[in-house]
Amino acid sequence: MPEIYLDNGATTRPTEGVIRKMNEALEKAWGNPSSLHRKGQEAEKLVREARQITADYLKTDPVTVYFTSCATESANTAIMGAAKRNVRMGKHILCAKGEHPATNEPLAALAADGWEVEFLENDGTGRVLLNDLRAKMRPDTALVCSLHVNNETGVVQPIREMGAVIKEINPRTLFYVDAVQSFGKMPVQPLVWQADLVSASAHKFHGPKGAGVLYVKRGLPLPAYVRGGGQERKLRSGTENVAGIAGLGQALKESAADLAGHEKQVRACKLYLAKRLKETFPEIVFNGPAPEDGAAHVLNVRFSGLRSEVLLHSLEDYNIYISSGSACASNKPEEMSPALSALGLTREEIESSARFSFCRFNTLEEVDAVIEALSAVVPRLKRYTRR
Amino acid sequence: MPEIYLDNGATTRPTEGVIRKMNEALEKAWGNPSSLHRKGQEAEKLVREARQITADYLKTDPVTVYFTSCATESANTAIMGAAKRNVRMGKHILCAKGEHPATNEPLAALAADGWEVEFLENDGTGRVLLNDLRAKMRPDTALVCSLHVNNETGVVQPIREMGAVIKEINPRTLFYVDAVQSFGKMPVQPLVWQADLVSASAHKFHGPKGAGVLYVKRGLPLPAYVRGGGQERKLRSGTENVAGIAGLGQALKESAADLAGHEKQVRACKLYLAKRLKETFPEIVFNGPAPEDGAAHVLNVRFSGLRSEVLLHSLEDYNIYISSGSACASNKPEEMSPALSALGLTREEIESSARFSFCRFNTLEEVDAVIEALSAVVPRLKRYTRR
Repeated sequence: MPEIYLDNGATTRPTEGVIRKMNEALEKAWGNPSSLHRKGQEAEKLVREARQITADYLKTDPVTVYFTSCATESANTAIMGAAKRNVRMGKHILCAKGEHPATNEPLAALAADGWEVEFLENDGTGRVLLNDLRAKMRPDTALVCSLHVNNETGVVQPIREMGAVIKEINPRTLFYVDAVQSFGKMPVQPLVWQADLVSASAHKFHGPKGAGVLYVKRGLPLPAYVRGGGQERKLRSGTENVAGIAGLGQALKESAADLAGHEKQVRACKLYLAKRLKETFPEIVFNGPAPEDGAAHVLNVRFSGLRSEVLLHSLEDYNIYISSGSACASNKPEEMSPALSALGLTREEIESSARFSFCRFNTLEEVDAVIEALSAVVPRLKRYTRR
Repeated sequence: MPEIYLDNGATTRPTEGVIRKMNEALEKAWGNPSSLHRKGQEAEKLVREARQITADYLKTDPVTVYFTSCATESANTAIMGAAKRNVRMGKHILCAKGEHPATNEPLAALAADGWEVEFLENDGTGRVLLNDLRAKMRPDTALVCSLHVNNETGVVQPIREMGAVIKEINPRTLFYVDAVQSFGKMPVQPLVWQADLVSASAHKFHGPKGAGVLYVKRGLPLPAYVRGGGQERKLRSGTENVAGIAGLGQALKESAADLAGHEKQVRACKLYLAKRLKETFPEIVFNGPAPEDGAAHVLNVRFSGLRSEVLLHSLEDYNIYISSGSACASNKPEEMSPALSALGLTREEIESSARFSFCRFNTLEEVDAVIEALSAVVPRLKRYTRR
């Protein structure tokens, strides 16, 4: 059975071009970019190229692009840095509900340190209510945090409108956008969004694990988080992961080469899956936005009366890989699944939810094979569950 | 001209075995270790193997081994975590002089936050004076920091004796050792040293850039620094750099396969270079420890009346790569070179210092070629400098 990987929200397969580029760095340009000699310059050149590719994609200047080890580090740097920078104006932070732990955990640390973290209401599909944002903005709001695309449900936040509301009310409030699920898949435009800080990770768009991006608005003096030798213009110290950064650049180049075409292909797969699922299992519920509304690559589905973790393992026998609603041992809905919990789902509903997430290499034939496998598996599992 | 790379203190060339292992991760085991399905387990297996290799080398248990993105991140996690953990016992920190910026910068941040950071005196070669450590230890000393092997001079600190002094006087004082220059080259034994925290980086022993280690003593509840999804048993969140970690494990396996044999080879090169340098340029001065005393792979040399940065670039024409005493644009000796500055060298002396750093793949023939190149270059440069 050929492998059908529909867990691209968790991680993606590095392309051949990415692996080739990384090998170039590992075999030839393995110098330390900080070294003054040619071996250092060869490595520095790869980093510079990746920075230019990233800046072009973001429609910004290379000086606004910083490389980190992952989006989680980017989030920590953005949030802790913004808090430190803006502490004098106030200790109030606004945050969308159902964010990723990379945002929730630094915010929890700030809350433990006396910061007031307030959450924004959503429309029931997870989309932030702009009026609620407007109502909750205060003169002491130091920071607003939001995902661009939710990793669990695929809901797309009205980032541009949020940026407009925030900056209209308080231009000094910093706006941090976690673009991990959209970067390399849709336009990510910090200048249009009026975002001050944007994070991303290479391994979500066919790059390697271990390479992240942090966009920092030009001229914004953000304090460093990982401190040391002063790499990345003092924002992020530590010898650069040259091979990872080169792989990130290559992955972005390939992804951005036909952003609209890739998105069309990915969305076609998702909509076809949604349609066939609904035909085959009429009782199915889509969590979050309607399939035609969310991001192109994420579909979150509830099979009532069935544990998705068991479904996940059953599909493994068919060489099909998906994600269950809950990837941890916790019993608290907000830890099991921040996004589904923010939609008001119960523990049982979260446990019966599964995420299918696509990439541009998936095909409609793969969707057919998934439906075939589900048709064999789901009735059997429901029988077991009833006992 | 074949390449002669004598800047192994800055970074090393990944071995073929390391690159092969990384390609295995990138091509096959590219799943997310947090995923519950087989693709995740394949990736998790590579991480587990690397953790076991690291634990075996450290003669400790895998639960004490955490992977980070680099030694600088390990240092930040260790220092900021130790400070947070021990803040109630006092805000006093002791630190060797001439440490790496990865230690100095987090300490500077703590100092700005009201911590008292006191430096330890050395014997003139950079070696910490145990009596000074004994005299400066206080009931409120939360942390002591030291390099094992200094990156600039190769001086080896009496870590075992320092651990004994620290723990005898105050068992609650945490002891952090930066083992970046010794890890994979000499025995690193936290249990023997009574060290609580030890850091290292793969790219210094023929692994890739972007993979670091932090040893944390068993049972020590260290607060996380990069917070999020809870990877690395909640100490270091962020999707694991699986290829980098697998490369780290492979590099350590190869390095540790014959630690003593490799060290002998490396030391032979260094001592031969020291001998031939002294014969060829009698006016030369060795900075830091005598060649026979320091770590096997580092030799720091002062060519008076000659700028080492110019020497570095002249040697590039011979395809020879070394490091100059100062790698930054600063004019302050302590920023140009913390270690040479700690030995009391002036700005001019630092500017005329060069570091030769070896690895197990260097040969005596390469040393001969370096002496030949220096014999051609140095007199010419001295002539220029005199004008």
